[in-house]
Amino acid sequence: MSIYSDTFYANDINLLLSERSAIAEMLKVEAALANAQAALGIIPADAAKIISISCNVDFIDINKIKSDIKLGGNAAIPLVKELTKVIKTSNFEASKYVHFGATSQDIIDTASILTIKKTISWMEDKLNTLETALITLTKEHKNTIMVGRTLLQQARPITFGLKTAGWLESITRSRLRLQTVKNDVLQIQLGGAVGSGNNHITEDVQSKFANNLGLRNAFPWQSQRDDLNEFSCILGILSGTLGKIAKDISLMMQTEVAEVFEGAQEDKGGSSTMPHKRNPVTCALILSNSTRTPGLVSTMLSAMIQEHERSAGYWHAEWETLTQLIGLTAGSLEKSIDLIQNLEVDSKRMLKNIEITNGLIYAEKVSFILSKTIGKMQAHEAIKKSCQLSISSGKHLKEIISEAHPEIENIEELFKPENVIGNSIEWVEKILKSYKN
Amino acid sequence: MSIYSDTFYANDINLLLSERSAIAEMLKVEAALANAQAALGIIPADAAKIISISCNVDFIDINKIKSDIKLGGNAAIPLVKELTKVIKTSNFEASKYVHFGATSQDIIDTASILTIKKTISWMEDKLNTLETALITLTKEHKNTIMVGRTLLQQARPITFGLKTAGWLESITRSRLRLQTVKNDVLQIQLGGAVGSGNNHITEDVQSKFANNLGLRNAFPWQSQRDDLNEFSCILGILSGTLGKIAKDISLMMQTEVAEVFEGAQEDKGGSSTMPHKRNPVTCALILSNSTRTPGLVSTMLSAMIQEHERSAGYWHAEWETLTQLIGLTAGSLEKSIDLIQNLEVDSKRMLKNIEITNGLIYAEKVSFILSKTIGKMQAHEAIKKSCQLSISSGKHLKEIISEAHPEIENIEELFKPENVIGNSIEWVEKILKSYKN
Amino acid sequence: MSIYSDTFYANDINLLLSERSAIAEMLKVEAALANAQAALGIIPADAAKIISISCNVDFIDINKIKSDIKLGGNAAIPLVKELTKVIKTSNFEASKYVHFGATSQDIIDTASILTIKKTISWMEDKLNTLETALITLTKEHKNTIMVGRTLLQQARPITFGLKTAGWLESITRSRLRLQTVKNDVLQIQLGGAVGSGNNHITEDVQSKFANNLGLRNAFPWQSQRDDLNEFSCILGILSGTLGKIAKDISLMMQTEVAEVFEGAQEDKGGSSTMPHKRNPVTCALILSNSTRTPGLVSTMLSAMIQEHERSAGYWHAEWETLTQLIGLTAGSLEKSIDLIQNLEVDSKRMLKNIEITNGLIYAEKVSFILSKTIGKMQAHEAIKKSCQLSISSGKHLKEIISEAHPEIENIEELFKPENVIGNSIEWVEKILKSYKN
Amino acid sequence: MSIYSDTFYANDINLLLSERSAIAEMLKVEAALANAQAALGIIPADAAKIISISCNVDFIDINKIKSDIKLGGNAAIPLVKELTKVIKTSNFEASKYVHFGATSQDIIDTASILTIKKTISWMEDKLNTLETALITLTKEHKNTIMVGRTLLQQARPITFGLKTAGWLESITRSRLRLQTVKNDVLQIQLGGAVGSGNNHITEDVQSKFANNLGLRNAFPWQSQRDDLNEFSCILGILSGTLGKIAKDISLMMQTEVAEVFEGAQEDKGGSSTMPHKRNPVTCALILSNSTRTPGLVSTMLSAMIQEHERSAGYWHAEWETLTQLIGLTAGSLEKSIDLIQNLEVDSKRMLKNIEITNGLIYAEKVSFILSKTIGKMQAHEAIKKSCQLSISSGKHLKEIISEAHPEIENIEELFKPENVIGNSIEWVEKILKSYKN
Repeated sequence: MSIYSDTFYANDINLLLSERSAIAEMLKVEAALANAQAALGIIPADAAKIISISCNVDFIDINKIKSDIKLGGNAAIPLVKELTKVIKTSNFEASKYVHFGATSQDIIDTASILTIKKTISWMEDKLNTLETALITLTKEHKNTIMVGRTLLQQARPITFGLKTAGWLESITRSRLRLQTVKNDVLQIQLGGAVGSGNNHITEDVQSKFANNLGLRNAFPWQSQRDDLNEFSCILGILSGTLGKIAKDISLMMQTEVAEVFEGAQEDKGGSSTMPHKRNPVTCALILSNSTRTPGLVSTMLSAMIQEHERSAGYWHAEWETLTQLIGLTAGSLEKSIDLIQNLEVDSKRMLKNIEITNGLIYAEKVSFILSKTIGKMQAHEAIKKSCQLSISSGKHLKEIISEAHPEIENIEELFKPENVIGNSIEWVEKILKSYKN
Repeated sequence: MSIYSDTFYANDINLLLSERSAIAEMLKVEAALANAQAALGIIPADAAKIISISCNVDFIDINKIKSDIKLGGNAAIPLVKELTKVIKTSNFEASKYVHFGATSQDIIDTASILTIKKTISWMEDKLNTLETALITLTKEHKNTIMVGRTLLQQARPITFGLKTAGWLESITRSRLRLQTVKNDVLQIQLGGAVGSGNNHITEDVQSKFANNLGLRNAFPWQSQRDDLNEFSCILGILSGTLGKIAKDISLMMQTEVAEVFEGAQEDKGGSSTMPHKRNPVTCALILSNSTRTPGLVSTMLSAMIQEHERSAGYWHAEWETLTQLIGLTAGSLEKSIDLIQNLEVDSKRMLKNIEITNGLIYAEKVSFILSKTIGKMQAHEAIKKSCQLSISSGKHLKEIISEAHPEIENIEELFKPENVIGNSIEWVEKILKSYKN
Repeated sequence: MSIYSDTFYANDINLLLSERSAIAEMLKVEAALANAQAALGIIPADAAKIISISCNVDFIDINKIKSDIKLGGNAAIPLVKELTKVIKTSNFEASKYVHFGATSQDIIDTASILTIKKTISWMEDKLNTLETALITLTKEHKNTIMVGRTLLQQARPITFGLKTAGWLESITRSRLRLQTVKNDVLQIQLGGAVGSGNNHITEDVQSKFANNLGLRNAFPWQSQRDDLNEFSCILGILSGTLGKIAKDISLMMQTEVAEVFEGAQEDKGGSSTMPHKRNPVTCALILSNSTRTPGLVSTMLSAMIQEHERSAGYWHAEWETLTQLIGLTAGSLEKSIDLIQNLEVDSKRMLKNIEITNGLIYAEKVSFILSKTIGKMQAHEAIKKSCQLSISSGKHLKEIISEAHPEIENIEELFKPENVIGNSIEWVEKILKSYKN
Repeated sequence: MSIYSDTFYANDINLLLSERSAIAEMLKVEAALANAQAALGIIPADAAKIISISCNVDFIDINKIKSDIKLGGNAAIPLVKELTKVIKTSNFEASKYVHFGATSQDIIDTASILTIKKTISWMEDKLNTLETALITLTKEHKNTIMVGRTLLQQARPITFGLKTAGWLESITRSRLRLQTVKNDVLQIQLGGAVGSGNNHITEDVQSKFANNLGLRNAFPWQSQRDDLNEFSCILGILSGTLGKIAKDISLMMQTEVAEVFEGAQEDKGGSSTMPHKRNPVTCALILSNSTRTPGLVSTMLSAMIQEHERSAGYWHAEWETLTQLIGLTAGSLEKSIDLIQNLEVDSKRMLKNIEITNGLIYAEKVSFILSKTIGKMQAHEAIKKSCQLSISSGKHLKEIISEAHPEIENIEELFKPENVIGNSIEWVEKILKSYKN
């Protein structure tokens, strides 16, 4: 439906979320159920064997399923019908045991968890790669002096490594969140019509079924969607975290700032009318995704209010929403790796930008020194006046302070950027050390 | 990416929103620009002719465009490249005048407005059809007595026609909103690189271009997205309005209420495991859509904060979001027509349901009568007690009231449903009359 | 509950939305109802007189009402109780006719519409003031050359007046939207328990009641919330529009850009630790508001799915949400007036910033000229190379182009900013002219 | 600003979130900083002592702070000013060391974490209470047969205990999530102007400061808001979980269902006009809250894209949003305890409701039995026909099946509800057992 499938998303995950894969996962679940039931003597072993073999997406008419979903309201109903038809042609007896005692939601939810499992695994890989790239970047720029900015104003110097260390820590936290959520969300849903189980869906069947699929055993959560929302929220947070990084880079790429750049590539970032521009295209796409994910998380949360044992609408609202949330977050993640691995840093420009305020960004340091003798508020006021004079006169603050406060010793030192980066370097070192293990 | 394209959406609109259509609309815009410029002597007439003929989606390699979008960050960049290549093979001179003086956003925004124009036209048709169906339903059930419900409790009787008249009025208001928004949103975007125009994009070109496309002329709104959001909000409101109707129907379809039903259809609404169920499948899909649209509107509004003359991310966030909002709203609209046209109404059951409280729903009327003699608060308290007695004893309220308040005359009349429907019938008649013109 | 009531909001509107005002408006509605019913002989004229006089917020124990709302679930229930108690002490007979035939929602919804009416009136005043300020600013800077920026990159010159004309047009559109929505949303809600009316709530009573309150007569819309959402959406759009302006200003205030500044004021925009900073505090507050309003609009839309004749939860969800949406939008509006009226513009710096790319922003113009002789794509490529050379060598683009393309005539002219602002000035003039009437 | 502060919220938490408390927490943070710096010899011990004593909310002019926030853009700026003024009057020397080396965000963020700490502690208590109430309810109704419902249709019987066990498990998971998030979010923010630290904000100061406040030490996260969003999401999930329970109860309270009721209380749940109604008032308020929280979570996520070392707007957007999210979730939690502890269950009506379909809900069971002999699809079709006959004829399904399929043995058994509740009882027992430890 969109020409942007290659633009905002990641190809691996597009494949994983494709119609074909969605149906393949559902078939895997049907097979796992049959096998579990056969292992416990609930259905004949032969039937399970035939069902298993038949649970092959190649045997299924996907378009038929797509067009029939609206009749029953979910994909499992036409799929079970098609699957039964396939099996019946080869073995009528076996066809009786398809989807035995299960309900549509058992299949759809569990299949969706299998997709989430693969997604998490892919994301963990990518987050590791991104982490490594950020560690490299942070090491490289541990000492690279730049200005720190608050409320879009130059504040006082930091090192670029301190900034990237902040990015790094946030990525690691997202990786750890994904690790934690696996214990919660990677679980089966199997309970039959109303989640009570039945003769064919027993606790032993659940346990075997979970085992077959490599998922945690769990009581039905068919209208309790908190674990699913925990996963959804973690994606939303990751997308926001990546958006923050892209925002910083896009701001540093501004023509007037020009401190970092997205890696160059043939035809990348060009404007159709302005040959000289170097647009933050990758940043824009990541930021676009992080603009969209909060609304999707919000929809997932709104859909939690599911009625009784299965909702009339809220369950359905999750399907495409979660798919899009996964797709956009995965897209941002892949793009962020490209962004960080190929980031071009102009450390000379960073240093030069510190000087554009004629020394104003050193004011805080000077104010601190002065406050020791005349008190904080007084120092604040005095320096404020000097700053205003510097602005109106165009003179460097150092010059003005020298005249106004000759009592300040070693004034040269106060105006060296390396003396006003606080503990930037030590803190970066400490953070990097925590990644050694 | 989703197996649900036939489930939540409308086929006509899916087609309109397809990759192919999106590119075809952009080509139409390029052609309109060339023709406008030729008419004003800015480019040669021959060039415009060749460009026009070449603006044919069959000549374009859609996959190439899809995969190249991420380089430049929008679909117009690779499209202009492809189009120029196509033209160059036939006429090098003409190729110089493709996209002359324009910027990517001019093409993408204007093409998107052309799609919106077709969407509105389709929706107006469908809203007319839905309106007609609701008028019919309202006429039919002007006098059909049912219980009105507040906070999910039986309150006092109304007619089913009064309920559907409320639905009807809300649909008409949405139709009128779409009519109004056409004056705002159906406008060109044409301003060149930064929206200032240039020698090739003059006021006259804008005017001619608008004329060629049947759109309103307008100054560039490339980073002023309020009109677009007005349209987006109106879709969000329509989707919510349809959701409200579906919610009412799904509640009335509850097994314990059983007053109305979605029209029967082979294989529709069946459960995979419970052959007796008649699920509100169409309602569930409409409700699913109305659960998802608020988050999309929210994303559109969040994306209004576009930086300077073109945003780095927010503009991009609109593309798929608006497409989905259109798609889901259109889907709900089409489904609602089916829902209303085929609605089965069990008016006997409606009448029967009024009696399940043993007369409690007549309490308000009795309270009113009583308040004339003993005051409102006192009457309220007295009737409350009688109601409690009715509940605990299982006796009909009429019986209890007769004993407790023998002074009340004509008590039989107070307990006839037709006497407690207020002005339902007159009001429905008045509403229906307003549709006669 | 928040220390930020003076920070994000507007004092006038805070007052309007206060507990006291909310209750006063409800009392006004009760009085209007009694008067309408008396005029039609439904209740005694004396009773209406006494009720009217008693509908005074000073007679009401607000804290009692606040603490009792949770029992009945809405504010009208305890209010009617208190009011009846007040009247009963002076005239028992009159007390029978309080809230006669009405339901809580009639009072609460209509009172809320009265508040909206005052809000719209206040906002129209403020929008007029803002419009005037923007017209002045636009006139002043019709010719002030600055660089246009797309994707946060310098693109090509415009005038500052062109930018502010875009802001101006968007504000006017919001003003017009408010004007239009008045016809929809400023209506009574009066229908009794289930919206069917009754002997005491007739069409004539509705009409008289509407008249008394200066509102449009309307059939009950108690669970049809589309008009209310139309208003809510328009606030959301206005808040976004103001956010866009604040975003532009905050970006132009960046230390490295320094083109405009929020007006100075004692103690405003100072940092607690950095005396030299001039923070875009007003912008930050407006941007904060525009970050919050989309979620509120989304909540309002989610709450449209109201069950039957009154919802169990969704109606309740509107109350504080709408209040906050009004409050935040009003706050942004008031702050924006301050922002625009006191904006300091550094037009010299604007001109200077154009030069920081060593002529790169003129590349498009040169490319156009060149394309006439060698074709668009070729020109694009050639200029791209020259741009790269300019970047790597640090030489001005004019110099490089002169050497590479000696065939280009009048090269000096191509590199004058006033020659590359397109139709900026004419377009601004045209826009300004439309405000003359 | 709202008359609903007692309606949607919890009093304890209202107090915790009050202006006074917010300022008191900030003062606590200033004191902790001074003490940490004194312990490390960075400021004189005497100064710290005086600062500590002065950090008393009673000394502060709250209104002055409220009205000055908009000047500097945050509450810490006027607070530090006021505090310094207070101290200066008693000890000029000490006043120099107030807020020494810190930035506004250090104070505001850390104070906000202290509030979160208290919130979590309160919520854990309440969740324990709710859990206990749900265990009691589940034990009581382990065997209480009722119908399970899917898509708002009766499906097949479960026990009420199975339903409440699902609620119980979801509450426990929220409790565990809160436990986990403590390790992430309960951390200090202390980094000085740009998060780099300085001579007065060293690693040792951070460590001491963290210790003083009972928080985890952490590097500055001033523009990395993922941990805060983790907390926010967990509230959103809890609110949704409580909304699901309230939704179920409100649906079961419907007049036509009447299976459970909110506990009665003087004046609670009454309608102003219908004395017989028993409105699900508490449910409505909880549902109202769960309608509002998703938009708030969405706003928090949108605000993650914070620029550089401190955002111009996004940080500000968090303040009231998080406060409201905490307030609403706390309100829902407190109300849910009341709801569950006082829930009235009509188990006779539950049993009776099972019979209203004339045996249709047993159809699945019969279908299963029949499928053993004639195959699943065939059985499904056969039973469907019998069901339709039952509906049209009004005869009980048992009767119809007996005639149509005399081969089915023990037909009486198939139509006993206790034989179609699957593993409801065993599963409830297993779940309850997990709470024994």
